[in-house]
Amino acid sequence: MPTRGQQRDTSRDGFRNKVEATLLSGLKPFWGLVNVTPWLARIANRLIVNNAVMKAPCRPLALSTQASYTNWSTLSDRTWFSRYLPAVPQDRLPPVAEVATLFKLRPERPPVLSDRSSLLFPSFAQWFTDGFLMTDQDRRRTRTNHQIDLSQLYGLNPTVTAALRRRSEAAGEKGKLKSVTSGNGEWAPPLYDATGRRDPAFALVPEPTHLPGDWPIEKRAALFAFGGERANSTAYTAAIGTLFLREHNRLCTLLERNNPGWDDERVFQTARNINIVLLIKLVVEEYINHISPYWMKLLADPSASYTAPWNRENWIPVEFNLLYRWHSLVPTDVKWGAANVALAELRFDNRTLLQDGLVTAFASASQTRAWRIGMFNTTPMLDGVEMASIQQGRDNRLASYNDYREVFKYPRVTRFEQISSDPLVVSELRRIYVSVDQIEYFVGLFAEELAPRSAVPPLIGRMVGADAFSHALTNPLLSPHVYNAGTFTPAGMEVIERTSTLADLLARNDMVPAGTRISMEAEGYQSVA
Amino acid sequence: MPTRGQQRDTSRDGFRNKVEATLLSGLKPFWGLVNVTPWLARIANRLIVNNAVMKAPCRPLALSTQASYTNWSTLSDRTWFSRYLPAVPQDRLPPVAEVATLFKLRPERPPVLSDRSSLLFPSFAQWFTDGFLMTDQDRRRTRTNHQIDLSQLYGLNPTVTAALRRRSEAAGEKGKLKSVTSGNGEWAPPLYDATGRRDPAFALVPEPTHLPGDWPIEKRAALFAFGGERANSTAYTAAIGTLFLREHNRLCTLLERNNPGWDDERVFQTARNINIVLLIKLVVEEYINHISPYWMKLLADPSASYTAPWNRENWIPVEFNLLYRWHSLVPTDVKWGAANVALAELRFDNRTLLQDGLVTAFASASQTRAWRIGMFNTTPMLDGVEMASIQQGRDNRLASYNDYREVFKYPRVTRFEQISSDPLVVSELRRIYVSVDQIEYFVGLFAEELAPRSAVPPLIGRMVGADAFSHALTNPLLSPHVYNAGTFTPAGMEVIERTSTLADLLARNDMVPAGTRISMEAEGYQSVA
Repeated sequence: MPTRGQQRDTSRDGFRNKVEATLLSGLKPFWGLVNVTPWLARIANRLIVNNAVMKAPCRPLALSTQASYTNWSTLSDRTWFSRYLPAVPQDRLPPVAEVATLFKLRPERPPVLSDRSSLLFPSFAQWFTDGFLMTDQDRRRTRTNHQIDLSQLYGLNPTVTAALRRRSEAAGEKGKLKSVTSGNGEWAPPLYDATGRRDPAFALVPEPTHLPGDWPIEKRAALFAFGGERANSTAYTAAIGTLFLREHNRLCTLLERNNPGWDDERVFQTARNINIVLLIKLVVEEYINHISPYWMKLLADPSASYTAPWNRENWIPVEFNLLYRWHSLVPTDVKWGAANVALAELRFDNRTLLQDGLVTAFASASQTRAWRIGMFNTTPMLDGVEMASIQQGRDNRLASYNDYREVFKYPRVTRFEQISSDPLVVSELRRIYVSVDQIEYFVGLFAEELAPRSAVPPLIGRMVGADAFSHALTNPLLSPHVYNAGTFTPAGMEVIERTSTLADLLARNDMVPAGTRISMEAEGYQSVA
Repeated sequence: MPTRGQQRDTSRDGFRNKVEATLLSGLKPFWGLVNVTPWLARIANRLIVNNAVMKAPCRPLALSTQASYTNWSTLSDRTWFSRYLPAVPQDRLPPVAEVATLFKLRPERPPVLSDRSSLLFPSFAQWFTDGFLMTDQDRRRTRTNHQIDLSQLYGLNPTVTAALRRRSEAAGEKGKLKSVTSGNGEWAPPLYDATGRRDPAFALVPEPTHLPGDWPIEKRAALFAFGGERANSTAYTAAIGTLFLREHNRLCTLLERNNPGWDDERVFQTARNINIVLLIKLVVEEYINHISPYWMKLLADPSASYTAPWNRENWIPVEFNLLYRWHSLVPTDVKWGAANVALAELRFDNRTLLQDGLVTAFASASQTRAWRIGMFNTTPMLDGVEMASIQQGRDNRLASYNDYREVFKYPRVTRFEQISSDPLVVSELRRIYVSVDQIEYFVGLFAEELAPRSAVPPLIGRMVGADAFSHALTNPLLSPHVYNAGTFTPAGMEVIERTSTLADLLARNDMVPAGTRISMEAEGYQSVA
């Protein structure tokens, strides 16, 4: 932790970056006014979104992880990640195990809590990015569809989707996903039966990633049949998946009632389309606003992308995949109702969720503080995952942290003290890397000190912003011929307009007791003006 | 044929369309000046290209041939064609066989020759579009990559490409495609041996589409191993494929010499990239300029697309696939050297080509006049193909000709006389369809009268222009981070800059006798000012 009063050397933050930070993270009364003046908010939103995206090179990028020079494959074969910078030799780097010590908790430093984020923030980030960040075994290829398509719920391809659907033309059943209803609401069906065997109806649904082979039968029996291979990772990701499943089936009831002539297929497809757009709305209006240190409330206004030079088919860069390893945000223990529970107990185990219900899970995530993102702050359970991430950067022969600063319009740092004011971070970086130019990308991302009001460090924030907007707002469902009542129905458009937060979604799909706080923000924190 | 002096009713041509035609197809001295003033030409080119593309709805379109309403598949599954208009019932249409009589030659009307195009024009169109217009058996799906990627030469996927490459690291061999050299130059290797059996090395190369099972052994033995399933359709398509094969191998020699450290793979990939861009240059600067009735010489300037709202991932519309059925341009007989030969004799038979050489084939196509595109002018050999095209329009339940006029910013016609001044066209359309609103899309396209200086009728011209630019100029090889000497090498960039026509390409790859005319234009015709 920084010694009180000690300051980071900001001489390499960049003049324009400083001016932007001053204008956007300051002037709170001005932005408060903008936020309540719709026409002004739309203009400001468009400027901010464009400025954020233009910090990154526009797609198409010239390279992928397939080859170190441009060829037809790097321009067309999306089973590889794209990449911002060419591969470079990794031979002068310190051992991975040594670098991994930068992430480990230290006996002399208790874990630092975030003053900004609740556990709902990293839980949503995990569940959300598991929809499009899939790394294959060799760490260079991907199975993603490169789109926000709610594959966590519906699966990566039509075969999986078909297995998860009821496919019934009966009244009240049209378009719905399979589900079971217990005393406290609707849930995805179990993936395994009570004896621990896979339900053959879900033979094509992916096996949960990293589920141990000897996982206890009673925990296994509480796992859900979700389209995403990581959707059961914790009770929190399972809760978010459940919320979107309930919303899907709720939308089906609504659509069937309003469109009596529709068949199962059309009800399903339209509910899915609306559900995807709801996710995009949450991503921009709740999640990105939580990440953003600005006082302006950013809007999911797709027209901001219609004439933008960054409106190009999405293709996930390997650097984007890696920067999302927010392991240090994850706490060791959580508040669940009145109890303290080890998060490890909620891994691949939805029994507590099934018993206490959806609201309890969301309230738990909202009242538990996330840990602060950064060095020396990863819960021991995730030490191995940090190491795998460092290794993935090397397998993909990524350029250095300083090289990536340049790509994203930050001046190169020349001293360790420009990265952090924390003496331990500075001394350990210096000991391990000797020169700032040697610091590798993955380490630099997390070594950077948080700016005031920031949920993530500067370079991560910039890269997430650029990719989030250029990825989310260019979804084909938001495009000019598609984003209309003809696609979603008038009732669907109304649902879309009414939804900005997980709390909105939860209120429609469970009984939320008055006064229950559902928020990505740590208690007492305020994101926008 | 129109009676002399009879005029088409132009009252539904549209005011803006008329003004544009007057300005762009007139004012020859002005455009002559623009053509020789580079900075002015670039500005004019950008305006004309944008105007041409914006006549069509921008991608992404909401629908594909998969379903009649927008769903995630119609927005993401590119194994279907996209479509501009929703499916409509086809139940009130006249029998296909009756409609097909509109295309058949009539005893009382001799075939009409084009005053504009040589046979090189439809031959190139056929070979070029066979690279991305592939219809599956059910007439609604496609196997295309939706890109100009020279799949006619390299195949649709890496497996085919691998079979066609030499894969040798020996000096002078790097990057090259397999080939054989005879007394008159280099050719693709034979797909079958002298006994008519497929060469097992090419087991994964596609079988030529529509090749009769009982095709004579001696003709079969002259077919080439090309990546494209239609590349052997005639000696002319085979000749164009051969030209690009020779250019590929020529580029490999050049690249290997300039880059001694490169391996086979890199030489291959870079030669392929350059070759694809050469094709795009020809498409815009020779082919589109031949189609365009304007006096302005259009340029393959990719920057025209960089900030355009139409720069979106390509996805072939089924309507675009159908409008390219230019069967009526194909003559029954051709001039080949001093002889007249039935074109049917050059089908799936490259013996004459192999014997007389590439220049003879290109000269033959250049000195043979194409027939004029339109009604009652299809060589009998292709009658069945016209019928299949009409059927494909119906299988895809396309909207009417008038509906498509509206989409592409032409007023709906209200009288048959607004389509053509040819009394037979008018009377036969009226007899078969009764009302102009009943005319189906495919028929309307070809019933329209050619405007002065036009190679194709107005609606086809407009749709080809819109799609050609938005398809060709958005190729990833032309994108801002890619279109540079880093991708193509300085020598590669120079080759790209020096190439505008098939004649340019042929001069580098064969001995062209002085005075040999290689052109898509009929003798005596001049495209641009």
